[in-house]
Amino acid sequence: MIELDFALNQLVIANRILANENVVDAYGHVSIRHPSKPERFFMAHMLAAPEMVERTDLVEYGLDGQPVSDGRTPSIERFIHSAIYEARPEVQSVVHAHAEDILPFGITDVPLRPVIHSGSFIGTNVPVWDIADNFGDTNLLVSNVAQGRDLARCLGNNNVALMRGHGFAAAARSLIDVVRLSVYLPRNARVQLAAMQIGKYKPLSDGEIAARAAGYKPYSEQTWRAWQYWANRAGCGPMLGKRPES
Amino acid sequence: MIELDFALNQLVIANRILANENVVDAYGHVSIRHPSKPERFFMAHMLAAPEMVERTDLVEYGLDGQPVSDGRTPSIERFIHSAIYEARPEVQSVVHAHAEDILPFGITDVPLRPVIHSGSFIGTNVPVWDIADNFGDTNLLVSNVAQGRDLARCLGNNNVALMRGHGFAAAARSLIDVVRLSVYLPRNARVQLAAMQIGKYKPLSDGEIAARAAGYKPYSEQTWRAWQYWANRAGCGPMLGKRPES
Amino acid sequence: MIELDFALNQLVIANRILANENVVDAYGHVSIRHPSKPERFFMAHMLAAPEMVERTDLVEYGLDGQPVSDGRTPSIERFIHSAIYEARPEVQSVVHAHAEDILPFGITDVPLRPVIHSGSFIGTNVPVWDIADNFGDTNLLVSNVAQGRDLARCLGNNNVALMRGHGFAAAARSLIDVVRLSVYLPRNARVQLAAMQIGKYKPLSDGEIAARAAGYKPYSEQTWRAWQYWANRAGCGPMLGKRPES
Amino acid sequence: MIELDFALNQLVIANRILANENVVDAYGHVSIRHPSKPERFFMAHMLAAPEMVERTDLVEYGLDGQPVSDGRTPSIERFIHSAIYEARPEVQSVVHAHAEDILPFGITDVPLRPVIHSGSFIGTNVPVWDIADNFGDTNLLVSNVAQGRDLARCLGNNNVALMRGHGFAAAARSLIDVVRLSVYLPRNARVQLAAMQIGKYKPLSDGEIAARAAGYKPYSEQTWRAWQYWANRAGCGPMLGKRPES
Repeated sequence: MIELDFALNQLVIANRILANENVVDAYGHVSIRHPSKPERFFMAHMLAAPEMVERTDLVEYGLDGQPVSDGRTPSIERFIHSAIYEARPEVQSVVHAHAEDILPFGITDVPLRPVIHSGSFIGTNVPVWDIADNFGDTNLLVSNVAQGRDLARCLGNNNVALMRGHGFAAAARSLIDVVRLSVYLPRNARVQLAAMQIGKYKPLSDGEIAARAAGYKPYSEQTWRAWQYWANRAGCGPMLGKRPES
Repeated sequence: MIELDFALNQLVIANRILANENVVDAYGHVSIRHPSKPERFFMAHMLAAPEMVERTDLVEYGLDGQPVSDGRTPSIERFIHSAIYEARPEVQSVVHAHAEDILPFGITDVPLRPVIHSGSFIGTNVPVWDIADNFGDTNLLVSNVAQGRDLARCLGNNNVALMRGHGFAAAARSLIDVVRLSVYLPRNARVQLAAMQIGKYKPLSDGEIAARAAGYKPYSEQTWRAWQYWANRAGCGPMLGKRPES
Repeated sequence: MIELDFALNQLVIANRILANENVVDAYGHVSIRHPSKPERFFMAHMLAAPEMVERTDLVEYGLDGQPVSDGRTPSIERFIHSAIYEARPEVQSVVHAHAEDILPFGITDVPLRPVIHSGSFIGTNVPVWDIADNFGDTNLLVSNVAQGRDLARCLGNNNVALMRGHGFAAAARSLIDVVRLSVYLPRNARVQLAAMQIGKYKPLSDGEIAARAAGYKPYSEQTWRAWQYWANRAGCGPMLGKRPES
Repeated sequence: MIELDFALNQLVIANRILANENVVDAYGHVSIRHPSKPERFFMAHMLAAPEMVERTDLVEYGLDGQPVSDGRTPSIERFIHSAIYEARPEVQSVVHAHAEDILPFGITDVPLRPVIHSGSFIGTNVPVWDIADNFGDTNLLVSNVAQGRDLARCLGNNNVALMRGHGFAAAARSLIDVVRLSVYLPRNARVQLAAMQIGKYKPLSDGEIAARAAGYKPYSEQTWRAWQYWANRAGCGPMLGKRPES
């Protein structure tokens, strides 16, 4: 149970970090797969905006997107998370957010590319999912299993998919991974957009993207440094606990 | 009377939210129609910048834009509000502000379009009102009944009108609606502007705009979540009260 | 002497407002003409960054730019102020700053134009002064009487001049006027720059600029509202004192 | 030893200033050469993000990039610092950071030029170093002596080099110099980028760059004013100590 305790605390911290770093606002969510029951995941209920999430706001869900014995209203878009956990057994954490600076790339034909080393984790290919392709005119929210699965199919084995006119969904092998990716994704987008305004830009090469991914460990000292930094800025320093073995 | 009490508290909160979210600065205002006397509305007097509005700063006005027995100097531009309440019986709340990021769309021929789901509430058509068309060279302020009515005519049945070289006026069926619209309007403008710099962009379809409007309720849990979040950020958490029945 | 007391307190507040609104940073300064001795003016000494200016940091200068019996190191660029007070007897207050968003207009051929109502006070014509025209290669600082006078000549009867690769100098009939102009100048520049990226823009007409200037009074309720708001944000609420008769 | 004490305190302050001014985030570092042993330098260990650096986090390194009897994990990229100190005996301080606004200039062919007086210290020529030129596909980090020396060669006698897809390295004759350069470098980049969007821009002339460099002294009152201002904003006012003789 200690592992679960630690994981849920980290999930509270992740909510606060994403809010403090402007990745989420009143909306947007982050989840983790249950560390010992892979067919379950945790995320906050509907009424808890990420900035205010407490440990007691976390709800356990099944891979069908339904809460496991919890009467509070679940988030409408929990199907983004359930469908990705269902399709990608190696994924341990998912973020969905509307970070403003990625939105232009979801409504134009310009592909988002990793152009800075901290953006390498978005990977070579960032697909754009348009809910209208298979579901016509909707309110753009991913509100059921079918829509979640369609998004997960578009995501494929990539790390992040943009959602047209809406936001992004990101998946990774650890909570720290997906938070890091989500924090640097908008920065990468801003740099690419600025570069496009002054000339031709050079993205990272596939070899560079691979070299960076190869060397990455979620609990290395180098990564923990960033996690600690973001947690401190978000006022969560005291909740951090000890760095797990890498 | 309890309904009026609640409504006026929410109006104080709305002032603080709009200031904290950078929609208004020293200038700009938000009003509500009197919940039981439709020929009256409330907004702060001239000397109260939105960030500092208290309950005692709220003044009751008639649809002619004149204060009802209140000796404090009224806001010059109260005619924006009175004219919209006069023309649109279903409107319960109005915002006028100078939010910077919408201003470029008021001085060019480029129409502002909803391009992100949170911007859907601006609607399909955002007209631009140029005070010079009917009033020549002015100080650009809407300073009398005739100018207010001219703006209201331009607004028509739309949710928001841009005002050339000046700002915007937004109208909605509830205070939460108009605050939400006003918070996301500048974000929508920023995303459209950025997208235009890199390529052709795809706005929301009319069907999507309609689907989003259809599902919206001012006091649903999903909406209250945002209201609560914004109020907390603005330091008004303790004033929130209980969520009304949806 | 009460008038001088009030004026010097307002000058301290102006320093803090300009810092808090990002018009000045470590550098930049604001001055006022002595209210009863027109051949004198006040501004802070060299070591006081605007954000930290106290009443005791204010130094009295003559129109030759020399301190009147004060041993502290004067600001190098005090000649901007002395030359403008010398050339323009009606000017009561001067700001020099490096506000970032106006800088692009100082190094290109694109004239800065008033495009929003709060920017009207920059006036129809904003000249650009290039120190290199008459002084060749310098460190760009206005370091002597001759350079100050050259800048004042370029400013002419306008309200603000851009200084190539450096910043701006603004002059007005009151301290509140020049602070207001300085706060909205960068906003006007940002809106013009954004508009230029999407299409042709429409600036304010000369008639509109005149209409706005005509109606402006430094101590009207409408203006005091902004002064009070900015002072409160800068933590100077308690220093404000009572609004003088308009 | 007092000189070393003073220098190390200033290095702590520099860490906090660079964090507070958004030059560094979780990553990035600043170092100083040992004031009396030129073959040594100091910078924080791996786990200390700049915002949180304390005096006890500083580690002494040799010019081979190896810590001098300190068991804590050193920063991977310490070789940037060691190689520059090795190649440039006059350099007393080095910064490496990923400041966002310079990144577009590292991935395009557009040279970064000094366009504002506070940016003059970047010098006439800002080379771009691409680690791929000599090392192929890497994780972009400067992880060994050879890579550090290659970067130092590209830097040459210039003050700053951009690193493609990564950040910049800056070198100067004093800590205050390199911090000032690092704070104004992103501002200069933003102004150039904005100017390029509206027209042809005029950079500082070589004579102007030289005139500014000639007049600069790290502990002059004018420079100390900025140092004091930045330190105060970063909450380090009480650590400042007395201004050394210029």
